[in-house]
Amino acid sequence: MITNIQKIQSWLETKRLSGYWVTKPENVRWLTGYEGHFGIVLIQKKGRNLLITDSRYSTFAKKLSKGKDFDFFCYDQNFKENIKKEFSGSVYAIEDSLTIAQLKNIEKSFPQIKWRSLSQKIEGFRRSKSKDELQKIATAQSNVDDIFRNFFQKHLKVGVTEKEIEYKLKHAIEAEGKFGHAFEYVIAFGENSACPHYHAQNRKLRLNENVLIDCGATYDGYCSDMTRNFWFGGKVDPEFQSKYDLLLHAQVESMKEIKVGVKVKNIDKICRELLGEEEKSFTHSYGHGVGLEIHEAPNLSGRSKEILLENEVVTSEPGLYYEGKFGIRIEDLVIVKKDGCEVLSNTPKELIIIKS
Amino acid sequence: MITNIQKIQSWLETKRLSGYWVTKPENVRWLTGYEGHFGIVLIQKKGRNLLITDSRYSTFAKKLSKGKDFDFFCYDQNFKENIKKEFSGSVYAIEDSLTIAQLKNIEKSFPQIKWRSLSQKIEGFRRSKSKDELQKIATAQSNVDDIFRNFFQKHLKVGVTEKEIEYKLKHAIEAEGKFGHAFEYVIAFGENSACPHYHAQNRKLRLNENVLIDCGATYDGYCSDMTRNFWFGGKVDPEFQSKYDLLLHAQVESMKEIKVGVKVKNIDKICRELLGEEEKSFTHSYGHGVGLEIHEAPNLSGRSKEILLENEVVTSEPGLYYEGKFGIRIEDLVIVKKDGCEVLSNTPKELIIIKS
Repeated sequence: MITNIQKIQSWLETKRLSGYWVTKPENVRWLTGYEGHFGIVLIQKKGRNLLITDSRYSTFAKKLSKGKDFDFFCYDQNFKENIKKEFSGSVYAIEDSLTIAQLKNIEKSFPQIKWRSLSQKIEGFRRSKSKDELQKIATAQSNVDDIFRNFFQKHLKVGVTEKEIEYKLKHAIEAEGKFGHAFEYVIAFGENSACPHYHAQNRKLRLNENVLIDCGATYDGYCSDMTRNFWFGGKVDPEFQSKYDLLLHAQVESMKEIKVGVKVKNIDKICRELLGEEEKSFTHSYGHGVGLEIHEAPNLSGRSKEILLENEVVTSEPGLYYEGKFGIRIEDLVIVKKDGCEVLSNTPKELIIIKS
Repeated sequence: MITNIQKIQSWLETKRLSGYWVTKPENVRWLTGYEGHFGIVLIQKKGRNLLITDSRYSTFAKKLSKGKDFDFFCYDQNFKENIKKEFSGSVYAIEDSLTIAQLKNIEKSFPQIKWRSLSQKIEGFRRSKSKDELQKIATAQSNVDDIFRNFFQKHLKVGVTEKEIEYKLKHAIEAEGKFGHAFEYVIAFGENSACPHYHAQNRKLRLNENVLIDCGATYDGYCSDMTRNFWFGGKVDPEFQSKYDLLLHAQVESMKEIKVGVKVKNIDKICRELLGEEEKSFTHSYGHGVGLEIHEAPNLSGRSKEILLENEVVTSEPGLYYEGKFGIRIEDLVIVKKDGCEVLSNTPKELIIIKS
């Protein structure tokens, strides 16, 4: 089986580059499995591939490199001198996620090397997920689905605050430390849900209003992402219900278009057409890739030129937002397949009504 | 009273710069109080000072700017055109914490502007804390002191894992959402404490070994930081106790040197002299500044050229590490004053013995 490092090496063969100096933590992890706080991967056309970290992580890094296509290399007091002997060429790629300070530092340390900053290159290779990666994402999502089965029926009550729900939901999802959080959750009551990236405040829940929950777990570094909507109280606002039905229809129908080879902008377009006049209240893009990062390539927007690849994991998350009134977003996590998509989110999508 | 923006403006007067384009979240917060996810501050010698953010945060940003020396400016579809009219000059400072991708983007968006990247400039102005900032740091530390009073007596038991202690300690410190975490805590049992930046694993606690806890809360954005050591079991290892006593003496005595105007490298030096031959096991620097960031200026290292300023908050945290055996670190958080330092950490420093 071809390793992730070999994928980058094959690509390097087509370029005037001696190698790649990789520091972005998610890229380092994808290439080597290393998840410590400080790590660099040096990939080379010729010469050794190295996983560089300091003595704190040496045991872990040595274990990772055993029988692999990279060696552990220690970042110690003599690092600069020692690593110079490893460079097999003079032009190396770096990621444009490096800061200006980091770039200046590396230029000063190795004046003999020319550094070429590249944008989202390794991230492109990370798009199609392996079986193992898909399993981890599914595990993270399945944990959230399990919690959604009873959590809101139990905890949504008149007077409870968004922050209290956030706190309890986070702890439930952690499951005693087995899972982490993929991002800052959106817990929004009533008019606060009109803000797509709202953060929980001390707003109290009232009778007969909507609740929007956008949350995701991490499992072994991999993220999940899902949004669901509740109506709290017995009297559903007919305007809310009709907007909900419209959005659900558009989400379900547009999701049918997700498959290998489709232009992502077409999915966004179909969804917008189905929303008709309400489309102007769909103020963000259709979705995004999910993996080691909660937002990664591809961006499923109307301006994107990307085509969907097999086994990439993306969100389908159209939303409608009405300032001062309410917002709705329905979001599923799916795997792109040849003939369609496999939905990972197992929580029902019909409006969930919770009687007080 | 002079505002933080005015401090930067006064400094700009002495430089060939038209203004400062500030994006680092902690700097944006310090200048304006803005704590949203996306914000830019434009400070200018001439022309308006602006807090730039998108419509999600406009209500908040407008409220913050009311009666202040900056105006809210909306980041919308016409941003690039609109903001061009605001620039009153052609040479602007930016922070070197920007990524290469961000720098390229800003250069492309505003080709008429020359951008000068500066290192740790605003961070220098953030060193001396205001009364309000000191109060927030003290509140964060006081929360941790409260928890230390009983937590470990209650939870340290034979067979408990580092991860379980980490999980319970984090939840106790959160106090139902009132406090956050300043960094990834160090919870290390026995030989694991020999690694200064260790992270909790599934290692179980055994009878008659040491426990090292390094943790900190955040309150309204401001951090605290403290390390304490426990001996679990009735039979204290005499070697551990003697190293502990030596380190405590060095920590207490060197702390007496902390006051306004002192060279930080001298404090580090005095501490090392007091450690005598054991100094070679003190493998990191003496301390660091604490504020909106857990590690901020000044770095209290032997190589630093800095002098301590009034009302800056720093750690005093010498440590001794013996691979395969144990590590000890005693860390206090202090405010630098004219005649000495005011200690914020109220947890006793004598070795805390917990009988099983």
